[in-house]
Amino acid sequence: MSGNDFIKDRRNPRHLSAGGPSADPLPVDLIPVAGGGLLHRRLFLKSGAVLGSAAALGATGTFAFATYGEESATEMPPMPPATPPWMKTPGGPFTNYGRPSPHEKKVIRWITSNQSSPGNGVSWTPLQDLEGVITPNGLHFERHHNGVPAIIPDRHRLLIHGLVARPLTFMVDDLLRYPMMSRLCFVECGGNSNAGWNPRPLQARAGHLHGLASCSEWSGVALSVLLDEARIDRSRAKWLYAEGADAAAVGASIPVAKAFDNAFVALYQNGERLRPENGYPMRLLIPGWEGVTHIKWLRRLKAVAQPMMSREETSKYTELVPDGTARQFTFVMDAKSLITAPSLGKKMQGPGLYQITGLAWSGRGRIARVEVSADGGESWAEAELQEPILPHCFTRFRIPWDWQGAPAVLQSRAIDETGSVQPTRQALMTARGSHGYFHYNAIISWRVSDTGRVSHVYG
Amino acid sequence: MSGNDFIKDRRNPRHLSAGGPSADPLPVDLIPVAGGGLLHRRLFLKSGAVLGSAAALGATGTFAFATYGEESATEMPPMPPATPPWMKTPGGPFTNYGRPSPHEKKVIRWITSNQSSPGNGVSWTPLQDLEGVITPNGLHFERHHNGVPAIIPDRHRLLIHGLVARPLTFMVDDLLRYPMMSRLCFVECGGNSNAGWNPRPLQARAGHLHGLASCSEWSGVALSVLLDEARIDRSRAKWLYAEGADAAAVGASIPVAKAFDNAFVALYQNGERLRPENGYPMRLLIPGWEGVTHIKWLRRLKAVAQPMMSREETSKYTELVPDGTARQFTFVMDAKSLITAPSLGKKMQGPGLYQITGLAWSGRGRIARVEVSADGGESWAEAELQEPILPHCFTRFRIPWDWQGAPAVLQSRAIDETGSVQPTRQALMTARGSHGYFHYNAIISWRVSDTGRVSHVYG
Repeated sequence: MSGNDFIKDRRNPRHLSAGGPSADPLPVDLIPVAGGGLLHRRLFLKSGAVLGSAAALGATGTFAFATYGEESATEMPPMPPATPPWMKTPGGPFTNYGRPSPHEKKVIRWITSNQSSPGNGVSWTPLQDLEGVITPNGLHFERHHNGVPAIIPDRHRLLIHGLVARPLTFMVDDLLRYPMMSRLCFVECGGNSNAGWNPRPLQARAGHLHGLASCSEWSGVALSVLLDEARIDRSRAKWLYAEGADAAAVGASIPVAKAFDNAFVALYQNGERLRPENGYPMRLLIPGWEGVTHIKWLRRLKAVAQPMMSREETSKYTELVPDGTARQFTFVMDAKSLITAPSLGKKMQGPGLYQITGLAWSGRGRIARVEVSADGGESWAEAELQEPILPHCFTRFRIPWDWQGAPAVLQSRAIDETGSVQPTRQALMTARGSHGYFHYNAIISWRVSDTGRVSHVYG
Repeated sequence: MSGNDFIKDRRNPRHLSAGGPSADPLPVDLIPVAGGGLLHRRLFLKSGAVLGSAAALGATGTFAFATYGEESATEMPPMPPATPPWMKTPGGPFTNYGRPSPHEKKVIRWITSNQSSPGNGVSWTPLQDLEGVITPNGLHFERHHNGVPAIIPDRHRLLIHGLVARPLTFMVDDLLRYPMMSRLCFVECGGNSNAGWNPRPLQARAGHLHGLASCSEWSGVALSVLLDEARIDRSRAKWLYAEGADAAAVGASIPVAKAFDNAFVALYQNGERLRPENGYPMRLLIPGWEGVTHIKWLRRLKAVAQPMMSREETSKYTELVPDGTARQFTFVMDAKSLITAPSLGKKMQGPGLYQITGLAWSGRGRIARVEVSADGGESWAEAELQEPILPHCFTRFRIPWDWQGAPAVLQSRAIDETGSVQPTRQALMTARGSHGYFHYNAIISWRVSDTGRVSHVYG
């Protein structure tokens, strides 16, 4: 067959289950394992053998996987092996520091800040446009209370004081003397996904609803080392008050036990020094805990007996519950997952075999399992998890889906190694009331219409 | 003690082994485990307990870890808690796509290209400035033969042809229909470190000698899936000829067996779409094999019975050996390691406890062990490896070093899970002759002078 035919066929992939001219029965891996056409995750683990069988089912032999097109038409260009223009002229120069392709200009952080106070707001990671688990540094989400301080690193100081025998100050160069550790960790704002408390589902892209979560390799110095050097009084000092060097002096109280467990002062993100918007020259990293505790532009740690009751742990980052009281110091980000494809803004290109993919994470440790439903939670199938599966890190999941063109509601449900399960929205509302703002981790639902359009619904 | 005293002390850290006013004997972890002052790697695994003891040894109680200063003086700024100027004014705005701090302008790729043919050359990852294992996309090394093509992604095609039953072409959108896989992998140019063949050791920074190696999370489609879909004739097709869409049409022949093992067509790097200089919109990823096989801007894969004997596998990327013949198709990058700190350009800030750190990798699989010598290879101690340890991925190693101020030669030696050991330079020369150019993986030596300056030597 010619390439042109192939492309044409592929534009209208045949429905897999309709079978083809072959009289062979469906290979075992193509038999649905849950409602709505979910197939066994191991379909992805085998190479050509099974997928070749799938291909063979199409009348014209086309491979049945389909894609999620952007909602825009693309002109049909000439086919290879015609020599493209960029092979006929020398290419562009080397660069000292690279940038994304100009054709990827739409893959950016979406900014929502306060017009009357432009340094107060957030920018969202475009999770729907990313693959794997690493967030590139240019796209890591931002949350600022008074903008990004222009810190001169040689003039920055970290002070450790309070209930310590030896108050200490550290320059950046001082910290670079210390033994480093590296961790692949997500950071998620406690306010991420809070559009979910809205009585009606907002129609926005995955990253614009849930992109206050990102994942990087962070390197720095264990807090335990610094606190021991300052000879913290562990019999009295139960909390640390951490303060940033931004104009809002954002601060949070952190239990000393967590500081000694796995917290660190990060100096590097994805190999290079921190970016200004992520705390340059140093920030706290508190694996698995809400973003506000990961104080950026860290300037002091005060060892104290009781939490400081700062703005960010009293009027903010606390949660009303149905009995009228408020939850406070709800640090841990609970098990959560999100289907990034298909998701709103991507259009299904006709019935056929698709890959459903997304991200799962838990502040309690590793992801143990992700289940996916294509029938709004009636039935569930286990997704494949991409190795390595690391604690407090994004985990990519994938599962094949034979979409037959009927309306469907897609959901994912994360279960972490402690057995904690991502709740339904109804269960979350029952436990926490309907006036929440923080720590929304309910199951997220995307509805696929019979025309392949995707919208946000409450399952 | 005041912060000022502390900083002053720290500028002249006491020699650890000299002991302090404390009459306590050295904690067991501070007893050297190899010549030249190498300490047991577990010193880093314990938190404050041991490190606190180390600190207590100093006469004034200072922590004994020392740093590698840049060879330039920095002015002494005022101490906190004085409010710095950037807390007194609102900070800068949110950004759609972030950039490094302007204070990190020196952390760039170093470009060496041919003046008369500026699109032919390389740019080097500044490994000496990075931590962890991820290379940020802006700093991944480049090797171009005729510049960076300005590809319009919608007009790019990948053709699979030759010994296949169904020649196929793929647009980017077509490939996005396929099941994705993600891998954390290094890519290393076969010509990396080739300054090592020079009879005299060149005096250049770690990244300028060895920075044609970088490590990212790559996501894309398994080659096995695409080849099976094209119904490759596996009885006859033993090689694939892969060709790029740059103006040099760089191509390489790759055994089909490797393609079916773990090779893939990468579309994403560290979460986002490939950068132009790294193959946008698609490139091959051949885990563990020399960089030239990871064809960028991939435009076709031709299934053939024999290798195509292209320029890049005949006059280049082959190696003369002492008997006058040439090694060809030497794909696998052997076990290698590199100390990044201390390294040339960093100056030791006086005797004291230091952290030696670096990177190890092997094209044969996982790193099993890295050994470090502080006495030019007379004795070796095992370094700590940062988890997770993944196949065909950079592995960060670290070991504490009590430098007593005497001249020292630092070396590292990688051993991979197949038992392959990084050779001495002498052993490499004996096996491969002295006129090599590619696949230089000998042990790398840095000499530390009594004044703390670091130079490149042959051990």
